[in-house]
Amino acid sequence: MNPAVDTDRLWTRLMRLAEIGALPAGGVNRQALTEGEAAAWRLVLGWATEGGLVPSVDPVGNLFLTLPGRDGSLPPILAGSHLDTQPTGGKFDGAFGTLAALEAVLGLAADGCMPERDLTVVAWMNEEGSRFAPSIMGSATFAGARSLEATRAVRDADGISVGQALDGLLSAFPDLPRRELGFIPACYLEAHIEQGPVLEQYGIPIGVVTGIQGKTTWAITITGEEGHAGTLAMADRRDALATFATMAHAMHSEIGGAGPAIKFTIGRVELLPNAPSVVPARVSFRVDLRHPDNAVLDAMGERVETLARHHAAPCAVEITRLSHAASNAFDPTLRNVIEAAASTRGIASLPILSAAGHDARYLAPLCPSAMIFIPCCDGVSHAEHEWAEQVHVAAGAAVLGDVIRQLAFPTSPAHANPHGVTSGRRTPLAQ
Amino acid sequence: MNPAVDTDRLWTRLMRLAEIGALPAGGVNRQALTEGEAAAWRLVLGWATEGGLVPSVDPVGNLFLTLPGRDGSLPPILAGSHLDTQPTGGKFDGAFGTLAALEAVLGLAADGCMPERDLTVVAWMNEEGSRFAPSIMGSATFAGARSLEATRAVRDADGISVGQALDGLLSAFPDLPRRELGFIPACYLEAHIEQGPVLEQYGIPIGVVTGIQGKTTWAITITGEEGHAGTLAMADRRDALATFATMAHAMHSEIGGAGPAIKFTIGRVELLPNAPSVVPARVSFRVDLRHPDNAVLDAMGERVETLARHHAAPCAVEITRLSHAASNAFDPTLRNVIEAAASTRGIASLPILSAAGHDARYLAPLCPSAMIFIPCCDGVSHAEHEWAEQVHVAAGAAVLGDVIRQLAFPTSPAHANPHGVTSGRRTPLAQ
Repeated sequence: MNPAVDTDRLWTRLMRLAEIGALPAGGVNRQALTEGEAAAWRLVLGWATEGGLVPSVDPVGNLFLTLPGRDGSLPPILAGSHLDTQPTGGKFDGAFGTLAALEAVLGLAADGCMPERDLTVVAWMNEEGSRFAPSIMGSATFAGARSLEATRAVRDADGISVGQALDGLLSAFPDLPRRELGFIPACYLEAHIEQGPVLEQYGIPIGVVTGIQGKTTWAITITGEEGHAGTLAMADRRDALATFATMAHAMHSEIGGAGPAIKFTIGRVELLPNAPSVVPARVSFRVDLRHPDNAVLDAMGERVETLARHHAAPCAVEITRLSHAASNAFDPTLRNVIEAAASTRGIASLPILSAAGHDARYLAPLCPSAMIFIPCCDGVSHAEHEWAEQVHVAAGAAVLGDVIRQLAFPTSPAHANPHGVTSGRRTPLAQ
Repeated sequence: MNPAVDTDRLWTRLMRLAEIGALPAGGVNRQALTEGEAAAWRLVLGWATEGGLVPSVDPVGNLFLTLPGRDGSLPPILAGSHLDTQPTGGKFDGAFGTLAALEAVLGLAADGCMPERDLTVVAWMNEEGSRFAPSIMGSATFAGARSLEATRAVRDADGISVGQALDGLLSAFPDLPRRELGFIPACYLEAHIEQGPVLEQYGIPIGVVTGIQGKTTWAITITGEEGHAGTLAMADRRDALATFATMAHAMHSEIGGAGPAIKFTIGRVELLPNAPSVVPARVSFRVDLRHPDNAVLDAMGERVETLARHHAAPCAVEITRLSHAASNAFDPTLRNVIEAAASTRGIASLPILSAAGHDARYLAPLCPSAMIFIPCCDGVSHAEHEWAEQVHVAAGAAVLGDVIRQLAFPTSPAHANPHGVTSGRRTPLAQ
């Protein structure tokens, strides 16, 4: 069996990348468009160019690393994930999918075989959405689901816009070639840790992702009136925190309790002025709602807005829906190719729904897209102790590498496609 | 009538001081031990030394400005307030009392009369407690109610300790003479805006403060477990924010609703990691409870702790009582002197309870102490639009100046004490 991917080097590089933004408890804080992300770019660009890949960046800060094919006019095969993390994120979320795709393409480059079409590794800008909301911003803008202007205008908690941060990041890479925003890939592949407990519970190393559960997010702002905690009578207060407590309690009780498949989270809360002896004038918070059934997602989304309005008095409330992505299904043909590649290597696989959102969500409407999951310990992600076993990292990267090789050399006898890459909707390489 | 205090210059200097840390909406952000406070010290030190006062600073960062008296062995007459503000504070809270005392003493210095004993203006360190909790830290340490070590160990949200910030501030003033911590003043006087609506409602320019309502504060930390907002099942979550919402809702409902005199505030809330798609691992918040009746204050304080424990599951809760100050009464003799001084000038006055805490709370057990209130617009304080009318600033400073002059020259025929400065407990100048 052709190893295709140097899985030992992949592990070493994953650990090396995790040193950038390393946190004391083993996690990583490398948020979008920060110095840390610039350092991660430098590291990855070094590995890519040393291996013969051609780098470029688009106007929204998505980073591309291309192994040129024989026919540059053909749409490329695209594979990757992201390099940014949560403020207390782990070593694998995003990094695994980006470096696994990089190793797969570097392995082919090292073999000296020129593929039919470009093979492009991508690191999408701001998948996590923790510094700049919403999440999955770079791929959404690439795919035309968000305008570049809207994305550049988003500001972080310090008032710095995506546009400012991006221009700052790009100014540190003056020699990095710029490319236009957006293109239609031949197909898109993304490997990722599951971020849930299913594969680990079943003892299965590979998840063939069927789709991503739907997700809606909101920014809600409660505006009351500031006052002195010792002098302003309770009856005269418009306390934004008291209103928030009632509103959040009602939302958690009703929506959080609406069945086993729902996920309801208030993950970010900010007070103004946030001083111990001042009645809070403003509370801004984020709501994250997910459900695999689009009808339930929509109905519970209505309840979020209704409860926010219902419990607002005596304050004012402003409700902004930041993002909405319905549940989607990945390309059945690519899913078959992944399942067959695992099977050929003798690795067990399982069809699995993604509970988390990923960049592949926005690629799926553009081109045949699919995802490969590997287990993560205790299902933990977005936390410092997020962990994946080296054997699972190797398995996921090997399967991804096999799939890319098979798609890149469709006629190669050594990597013949036993299932035939065709789709009722659109074949991955039809363009 | 001798004007004693240059009230026009006082107003000009109040407006000048408010330029340091000025905010767009007219407020001031000049928190304790910041660059802003250092700049305020520089300004005030310039005015004081130009007028012949002798500056000094104690180990906890309380700033003293002294007009030396004939007998340096007598306890000084102490008057002042503080120069720090809330993050979105106003122009008058603290600044008025400090500059009014300064103008009163500068007025006497300019007259060339040497008082019997030292007249000392004080700017207490960290009255507001917004950067470093609890509030009223400098005067509490001066009075021995807190240890210097405990005060220096307190850290701000960035992990910087009072000790570090204080050493940094003092290093900018190498020539400022150091003095030992603590002494017993002959008496203490503090002028302040009311920070409530009573004087304005009655149309009375001077409040003779009877005492300060009791106050207890807590830091409460809820610890749950971090997780991915899209993958972690609701039943498996230990969501610190969901627990906080229930707890805060219960506290606001029961304690906030316990009668017209109670004040219950959750003014500061901090989440970890505070990211939109991460189930919060930790919520830390501050509780501020006040009531003029010590029995109610204690009973409701018990309920704060009981409700925190009752609603903690499935998270853990840690409850730390940061400060407790029972309701107190100011010196009756000094109150009479203030009322008489106002009356002599033909200014109406009213006995009034202070709903807010002040440095005078910690001076009252040390020496005869009293406070003079002036109205503030709509009762607003701890807010950018905090405002006091110039005529009220002038009235308060004139009465304070008359009281200081009378206490400083007890035998002067021009400033005889028509009511007799005596007290059943201890006369202001008995020491």
